Amino acid sequence: MIEVGANSYGKSAIRLVKIVRNETPHRVRDLTVAIALEGDFEASYRAGDNAGVIATDTMKNTVYALAGEHLTGAIESFGLVLGRHFLAEPQVHRARVSIDEHAWRPITTAPDAFTRDASSTRTAVVSVGRDATTIDAGFTGLSVMKTTRSAFEGFPRDRFTTLAETADRIMATKVTTSWRYAPNGSIDVDFDASFATIRSTFLEAFADHHSVSVQASIWIVGKAILERHPEVDEISMSLPNLHHWTVDLSAFGIENDREVYISTTEPHGLIEATIRRSDA
Amino acid sequence: MIEVGANSYGKSAIRLVKIVRNETPHRVRDLTVAIALEGDFEASYRAGDNAGVIATDTMKNTVYALAGEHLTGAIESFGLVLGRHFLAEPQVHRARVSIDEHAWRPITTAPDAFTRDASSTRTAVVSVGRDATTIDAGFTGLSVMKTTRSAFEGFPRDRFTTLAETADRIMATKVTTSWRYAPNGSIDVDFDASFATIRSTFLEAFADHHSVSVQASIWIVGKAILERHPEVDEISMSLPNLHHWTVDLSAFGIENDREVYISTTEPHGLIEATIRRSDA
Amino acid sequence: MIEVGANSYGKSAIRLVKIVRNETPHRVRDLTVAIALEGDFEASYRAGDNAGVIATDTMKNTVYALAGEHLTGAIESFGLVLGRHFLAEPQVHRARVSIDEHAWRPITTAPDAFTRDASSTRTAVVSVGRDATTIDAGFTGLSVMKTTRSAFEGFPRDRFTTLAETADRIMATKVTTSWRYAPNGSIDVDFDASFATIRSTFLEAFADHHSVSVQASIWIVGKAILERHPEVDEISMSLPNLHHWTVDLSAFGIENDREVYISTTEPHGLIEATIRRSDA
Amino acid sequence: MIEVGANSYGKSAIRLVKIVRNETPHRVRDLTVAIALEGDFEASYRAGDNAGVIATDTMKNTVYALAGEHLTGAIESFGLVLGRHFLAEPQVHRARVSIDEHAWRPITTAPDAFTRDASSTRTAVVSVGRDATTIDAGFTGLSVMKTTRSAFEGFPRDRFTTLAETADRIMATKVTTSWRYAPNGSIDVDFDASFATIRSTFLEAFADHHSVSVQASIWIVGKAILERHPEVDEISMSLPNLHHWTVDLSAFGIENDREVYISTTEPHGLIEATIRRSDA
Repeated sequence: MIEVGANSYGKSAIRLVKIVRNETPHRVRDLTVAIALEGDFEASYRAGDNAGVIATDTMKNTVYALAGEHLTGAIESFGLVLGRHFLAEPQVHRARVSIDEHAWRPITTAPDAFTRDASSTRTAVVSVGRDATTIDAGFTGLSVMKTTRSAFEGFPRDRFTTLAETADRIMATKVTTSWRYAPNGSIDVDFDASFATIRSTFLEAFADHHSVSVQASIWIVGKAILERHPEVDEISMSLPNLHHWTVDLSAFGIENDREVYISTTEPHGLIEATIRRSDA
Repeated sequence: MIEVGANSYGKSAIRLVKIVRNETPHRVRDLTVAIALEGDFEASYRAGDNAGVIATDTMKNTVYALAGEHLTGAIESFGLVLGRHFLAEPQVHRARVSIDEHAWRPITTAPDAFTRDASSTRTAVVSVGRDATTIDAGFTGLSVMKTTRSAFEGFPRDRFTTLAETADRIMATKVTTSWRYAPNGSIDVDFDASFATIRSTFLEAFADHHSVSVQASIWIVGKAILERHPEVDEISMSLPNLHHWTVDLSAFGIENDREVYISTTEPHGLIEATIRRSDA
Repeated sequence: MIEVGANSYGKSAIRLVKIVRNETPHRVRDLTVAIALEGDFEASYRAGDNAGVIATDTMKNTVYALAGEHLTGAIESFGLVLGRHFLAEPQVHRARVSIDEHAWRPITTAPDAFTRDASSTRTAVVSVGRDATTIDAGFTGLSVMKTTRSAFEGFPRDRFTTLAETADRIMATKVTTSWRYAPNGSIDVDFDASFATIRSTFLEAFADHHSVSVQASIWIVGKAILERHPEVDEISMSLPNLHHWTVDLSAFGIENDREVYISTTEPHGLIEATIRRSDA
Repeated sequence: MIEVGANSYGKSAIRLVKIVRNETPHRVRDLTVAIALEGDFEASYRAGDNAGVIATDTMKNTVYALAGEHLTGAIESFGLVLGRHFLAEPQVHRARVSIDEHAWRPITTAPDAFTRDASSTRTAVVSVGRDATTIDAGFTGLSVMKTTRSAFEGFPRDRFTTLAETADRIMATKVTTSWRYAPNGSIDVDFDASFATIRSTFLEAFADHHSVSVQASIWIVGKAILERHPEVDEISMSLPNLHHWTVDLSAFGIENDREVYISTTEPHGLIEATIRRSDA
């Protein structure tokens, strides 16, 4: 027998800008929204029955229609409104709302002009289900670098190992991270305030420690966030190790003591881990 | 208490080209390889202990070093060799090897000149563990289109629904699909032959049916593959619905009966499902 | 005094698909069109006077509106129709129409199903002016490789030279090329036929010669095209040299005689030249 | 007869990071460099004679080798050093050095940790020739938006015009701009200081004016820069008009008075112009 396994459907890349005009300066909300529904949709696959298939075009319309009234605070809150809206249909068992927010900063000389801060993108994934709701917040695309206090030593050497041990290397990565807030109601979260302070903790912990590996850095940063932010249950990071190789200039009679590097993207290390509270 | 949850690490974007010179024409093998290891690595996070941390640079070296002798057949076979190599270290509990193969076709007038067929990329993910090994094969990036025999009707209408029902629309998508082969040993698989015939079945089934929705198409294509290819246990597809909107030219006194369309990428539908054999 | 220098404006990234239904199989025309106008537009800059500024939205509408009747042959012909349409306005002195065509191939088992051939994109730039009209055709994005018969020797060595001479290297590039057809009327051109045969000449000449440098290859390929295709006045190529470095596996006791390579994109050579008929 | 027309060759995408360690905090210089040479290279095309062809690999080595001593100030100055280095070879008639600088900002809590400011990239193109040297500076990738004081009215209406006139629209663009400094020696330029103040003038002028079209904005911004910065001879801008369309929510009984917009990238307007000092 053949059956339908895990499945979801929805609309992605819904690009929405809302201008808040009753503030000075104006405020620009610039979102990319994706909706994905799970539920009782097997008939749409097996029988071609669209009776329960909310059109993805309708999802798009809904996002724009609800933005005026409901996109007034954090993207997590707007995600909850959207998720609950779609969960109101009986065939939907889970609505996953993913929202990326692109930051715009006022140009200080005018109330109505802005530049985009493209250094990172704030993210939220709100998953509203019949049984449980989860809220993950985070950011992506933030390039960070440590110019000292990063090492990699003591690793095993086999037939194919050529990498030299180093007590002082550049560590550079482009951060993708998201953290899960404690279950609904257990801790009251101000999503915007939490985002700002968790991001600060991330950067401070990243900046302040001596790194013996990307793995150790993930632990130190993750632990700092869990210790300082009781509203966070767990945090995941996906960190490419973007290697910077010291250029060997000795053939040219030029000394290069950790000054000039080749910046590379291919190949790159990739370290992914979740740091979480244990039940113990 | 704080602990390390799910984690893996490795090297990504290892770009390898191997030229097979003892054939006419030559053969170009052009791979992008990623290695990710799971296992007993908690100490590397919590204690900064690198004693078990196989350097990702060593992984890269290993891929190049083993390619001469072992990249002689399908990428799945090379993935198995690489996975088993890393699993030989006791701290490794699972080695996941992802290989993308980029196709090159000979220019017929010479034995040593090639053009890249960029229309799609073949993929394999071989996950070798102490308990079980899985082999997923597939392809990504293949744009396909149906110019007729695609409809979308009978979907629910609510306050925010504006989409008209249509009995004849363009269906266009960029396919990402992968299928899991039956567990090791249960069926003998010729990976290259299976890939070619499964891809053919995919295209034939896609071309031949009348589609009432992307969901229904996934079922029809997936079912055809499971029925014709006993070596496949399940197949997953991730299909963006790349909307083509009929341009309304009536204001210009021009009739446009499903002839001229606006091709769009934002927003797009996204339908993801697994079709599998059931135990029943 | 301050003045307006060179300037143009228009609409880019107009995505148009036209389905030709009265053939079996159907035909998919998939274009990306850009319009740019030059002319008497200084007042729009200096005085904010929009009286002559054809809205770029109107340009977009025009492309869709004229596609039904006029996109029946080569993209060059459609470009000429569009260019002349905009040149009919007196303030326009030159209309440049750029069209990329994305190829779709029928799936042979059905008349209405297609896969996209993403291996290269055909391009045309038609520039229609009061004085002269030029038609440039070409293609972009085609990756090609020579696995032998490519060398690089005899280059000068200075203090900073470390590259070894090589009599046998891989040559790989991603071709962007365009050629200019002889002035309107001097030679009758069947644009589709010319495109196909010139592209074939390109590939044959690329495949058949021994290359001592990318520069020499450009000359050989360009000369072959000018010699065989009298309708072509000149041809330009922009060829990145995508280096493939032989991996040194000697430390592992493994011989690697031009078999396993690292494929790279950063940094890359870039050789750009025009080969043309001289007046002499 | 067939001949070689315009041609150049060189190395692109040279990725260089230099860490300045004798300052607190450290300073990160992160550059992407491209070298392109013109000159007496016809024999390399026609005769395959590499005797004058400085290897692009040597160019790459040269960039890294000279960075220690010569990358101490503005990228324009480093570009001049590199350009003059290559011009010292007699066969080189012009050396064009393009440098992009990627900005990194210190994390304030540590002297050795940084985040990348990805909001824009500073650019310089230094073209050193036997006859003349030009220095173009600029930036790219900066997204800017005006939430009011942007209109588009009074444009001509023809058969294909459907765009409504609007006295209040969003204007959004992603700026690519570069300006040419007055010829060498005529005005003494502090490249870093000039860059900072010209960028400020750009943003102020962009923010402060009422825009009746993108063209008019280019004039206003360009004129302000030429008036305030005597060291600038001309400035060029390439501005996509990234349309934001007001969503029509009236069918849902929802008013949308310039609040909720669809942000789009395809198609987009494109306005390109140079504003310059005239001889008059």
